[in-house]
Amino acid sequence: MTDAVDVAPVEVGPVNRRLVLAERPVGAPGLQHFRIETAAIPSPGPGELLLRTEYLSLDPYMRGRMNANAGYAEPVAIGGLMVGQTISQVTASNHPDYAVGDRVVADAGWQDWCLSNGQGLRKLDPALSHPTWALSALGMPGLTAYVGLLDIGQPKPGETVVVAAATGPVGSAVGQIAKLKGCKVIGIAGGEEKCRMAVEQLGFDACVSHHDDELPRLLAEACPDGIDIYFENTGGAAFEAALPLFNNYARMPLCGQVAWANATNLPAGYDLTPRVMRLFLHRRVRLQGFIVTDHYDTRFDAFQTDMTQWLAAGQVKVIEDIIDGLEHAPGALSGMLSGYNLGKLLVRVS
Amino acid sequence: MTDAVDVAPVEVGPVNRRLVLAERPVGAPGLQHFRIETAAIPSPGPGELLLRTEYLSLDPYMRGRMNANAGYAEPVAIGGLMVGQTISQVTASNHPDYAVGDRVVADAGWQDWCLSNGQGLRKLDPALSHPTWALSALGMPGLTAYVGLLDIGQPKPGETVVVAAATGPVGSAVGQIAKLKGCKVIGIAGGEEKCRMAVEQLGFDACVSHHDDELPRLLAEACPDGIDIYFENTGGAAFEAALPLFNNYARMPLCGQVAWANATNLPAGYDLTPRVMRLFLHRRVRLQGFIVTDHYDTRFDAFQTDMTQWLAAGQVKVIEDIIDGLEHAPGALSGMLSGYNLGKLLVRVS
Repeated sequence: MTDAVDVAPVEVGPVNRRLVLAERPVGAPGLQHFRIETAAIPSPGPGELLLRTEYLSLDPYMRGRMNANAGYAEPVAIGGLMVGQTISQVTASNHPDYAVGDRVVADAGWQDWCLSNGQGLRKLDPALSHPTWALSALGMPGLTAYVGLLDIGQPKPGETVVVAAATGPVGSAVGQIAKLKGCKVIGIAGGEEKCRMAVEQLGFDACVSHHDDELPRLLAEACPDGIDIYFENTGGAAFEAALPLFNNYARMPLCGQVAWANATNLPAGYDLTPRVMRLFLHRRVRLQGFIVTDHYDTRFDAFQTDMTQWLAAGQVKVIEDIIDGLEHAPGALSGMLSGYNLGKLLVRVS
Repeated sequence: MTDAVDVAPVEVGPVNRRLVLAERPVGAPGLQHFRIETAAIPSPGPGELLLRTEYLSLDPYMRGRMNANAGYAEPVAIGGLMVGQTISQVTASNHPDYAVGDRVVADAGWQDWCLSNGQGLRKLDPALSHPTWALSALGMPGLTAYVGLLDIGQPKPGETVVVAAATGPVGSAVGQIAKLKGCKVIGIAGGEEKCRMAVEQLGFDACVSHHDDELPRLLAEACPDGIDIYFENTGGAAFEAALPLFNNYARMPLCGQVAWANATNLPAGYDLTPRVMRLFLHRRVRLQGFIVTDHYDTRFDAFQTDMTQWLAAGQVKVIEDIIDGLEHAPGALSGMLSGYNLGKLLVRVS
């Protein structure tokens, strides 16, 4: 520990803007569910450091945290700071492990400035060509793809892998890693532009749009040998189209349900559960739900090594959708839940 | 191979009765869906042997085979012999590996006599104290329990295991093996008599009735530490009561859906799939559908060794429900699908 406090000569705004949860949304979140507050920029005490947010990551799990019952994690409190991972820069440090100018991945949330005692920070290699990749291919979405596809899906060369949200940070990594493992990869995405991008930029074998009423037929045509791995991150129409195509011994890593994120009611009509379970039984399907935070301790290092190499070799490409201004984060999150983003959604904060 | 044909001096009926599928049932099967036919008792040709059926096993999977789309196996043809495993006695043999008087497990189907070329037969040890056990604890239902609980469920001492159809041949084996592995075992069964039997005769820690409208509350009270393994062989009310109690990292081996076997429509109302999947995700559930016939090659020997020992030591008990007369098999199958049997259902044929 050091007693010296170094303050970096960066341009700082006069206040810390904080985006807090004003009200819990029922259905789709809108601007009215957030509130912007301002506070003084905090000063680091002994052992603390001050972080300035450079980029805020927006991710589907955030919608769940806005509910009173967030499922596997604590909900954001009413009036509480919205949670989120950031790329942040150390602007002052009383912590021996961090120096001014260091870049870190932090759970700083939706704000300009953040105090930290160093816990949970991950320092970025200054040599990293694209620091923002630490929030996508080299970060949480990339690890989600890596663990879900490789550890749970266990792909074998020649197998068919289907993944929805194909141009999103998880889906794009799933598809590209699956190609590296010798699989045939079919994406599902919202609209022609995304589908074209999945094939032309990411190397998917095909990609079909869930906006198309003919999705079940289109997906069946794209998967003449059935589906061996259905990587589930959306639910909804993608799941319903994929299910009948499952081969015997198919695997279904399950990490998200963004298609149902804003749902306020269960779909009316019939309970499909008996049909789903019968198919899981007859086709000997293995489904495994997983939360990526469980896997950092055991898999993050191997993932970093592999993914760094794949990125350097150009075998995995990253698509980013960066918007400017913390004040636009609420609208951007709403848009993402409707599929308006194209690639990994980030907010450039400073 | 031998040229001699030895015919055992057993009392034989003058004809072979065969129960065939007359019509595919919609909903519950009844007597009208079967037809009894008679034929001459066949004579074994070179390399063949003649089997006389002693016991016919009745199992829930048979209902599925009566449908045009039987799922993972070929349906029984209209006019075709109903399929089923039997304990049979060799009454004549032109096969070098089988002698008159040998007892075998055969896929002889619903008939008095059967020709075989020896394929798929399994000879029973004459020292086996209860030959019928080869159709229950030492046979297909026992292997189903063994593979599903141990290989898929991977029980750890102190964990809570829930299994429905608790006094049936699969459920009773699951519960008793789980007790041997140090688990707390809660059964679900139809009615007080079965529940009492599960606790008093089979050693379950508790058993609750799915006839009770309060099943969800009763099961929750019986599982104060949640559920670590839900062995799924029924679906229906048992599944719905168990699901909310799943712990993180719960396992769900899935081998049957007898509660939905006769269903003609999906349940009306709401599609619960999104809710089920959300829970699987949040609780990191692993579900694995399996068909026992996949596991004979790799697991049958170990299973036989273990189960023989458990039975000899009285650590696993077998409950059998034996009815007399092949002609009663259709009614007995219908009754089983409504839960009227108490233990492993067998038909004594001769």
